Amino acid sequence: MLQIQPLVLASQSPRRKQLLEWAEIPFEVVVSHADESFDPLLPPTEIPVQIARQKALAVQQQLASQGRAGQTILAADTIVVIGDKILNKPADRAEALEMLSSLSGKTHQVITGVVILQGTTETHFAATTSVRFHPLTQEQLCFYIDHYAPYDKAGAYAIQEWIGVVGIAAIEGDFYNVMGLPVSLVVQALAALNPPS
Amino acid sequence: MLQIQPLVLASQSPRRKQLLEWAEIPFEVVVSHADESFDPLLPPTEIPVQIARQKALAVQQQLASQGRAGQTILAADTIVVIGDKILNKPADRAEALEMLSSLSGKTHQVITGVVILQGTTETHFAATTSVRFHPLTQEQLCFYIDHYAPYDKAGAYAIQEWIGVVGIAAIEGDFYNVMGLPVSLVVQALAALNPPS
Repeated sequence: MLQIQPLVLASQSPRRKQLLEWAEIPFEVVVSHADESFDPLLPPTEIPVQIARQKALAVQQQLASQGRAGQTILAADTIVVIGDKILNKPADRAEALEMLSSLSGKTHQVITGVVILQGTTETHFAATTSVRFHPLTQEQLCFYIDHYAPYDKAGAYAIQEWIGVVGIAAIEGDFYNVMGLPVSLVVQALAALNPPS
Repeated sequence: MLQIQPLVLASQSPRRKQLLEWAEIPFEVVVSHADESFDPLLPPTEIPVQIARQKALAVQQQLASQGRAGQTILAADTIVVIGDKILNKPADRAEALEMLSSLSGKTHQVITGVVILQGTTETHFAATTSVRFHPLTQEQLCFYIDHYAPYDKAGAYAIQEWIGVVGIAAIEGDFYNVMGLPVSLVVQALAALNPPS
């Protein structure tokens, strides 16, 4: 709430910015080029943590080179897992349709990995939310792809857009995690790092 | 999607209007004075359906008197249930604080009853979502009450506001139901009433 120090958000995602604003957490966006590759043999919950760590470290290095070491850096990465497949951002319309068809009528997991760096202290965690889609028609999937913006989203959809409003039957877990950041856990982690004096 | 006929929304709730807009369902708002009393011996899922039915019937009567019978009317009512208590809208600051204190650190149910009237055909259902709050401090609860608008909300909170973003650990069920309307079920009910020809 009021005790939260401004932090550096290592993400350009408009959803993550919006979530920090809704949570009234002051922040500044600093983005650095980070390696987003990951070891496919890692357990699914560790993959987005590894990618988030790479984003956070790239920004920490950049800030250090500007004499701004010591600032709290928040990075996150979200993946969609269905069965044993990991869905990233779709490359084109055909892949978006393929991804959404695989989600239709089924339950998948959305996993966001979070890394918070404060100097040499790293806090990290992953949050998982299960999402169950109603069976959707090809017409509905194509309507979404052609009228909304699936291409910058893991799994090719956003829960807060039309397809999430009309197409999702139920979730289990944190809704905001599906939007891209488990904000309430971030608030708790920041409070633990900076206990009120 | 595109086949949905415009309907009459028997509600002035800005959340319900926003949800219909997000779902791309065309609508017009018509509100009539309805009796919002209910039989406290009803099972919790039937209470908001009874209130929604009263709202829908009041609007149907009003439209009929204007020669506009036959339009599809959608009404909804949302209640919050914790243990054996039903929480309505708080009357004042003290009651809002009492309600939020009773939700803090616990799981409650949000139940929305929906009634759709199309001539003499009534479709009704209730949707229940479980919501688990983190333990929140008095300071956090007072911050929310004093900086947001708890007074027009059952249970004294909105999931899409600050307290929902930083305070809710997890939900089980439909997020939009907690906002006031299980939109995806409404879309399905409308499609069943008006199958594509």
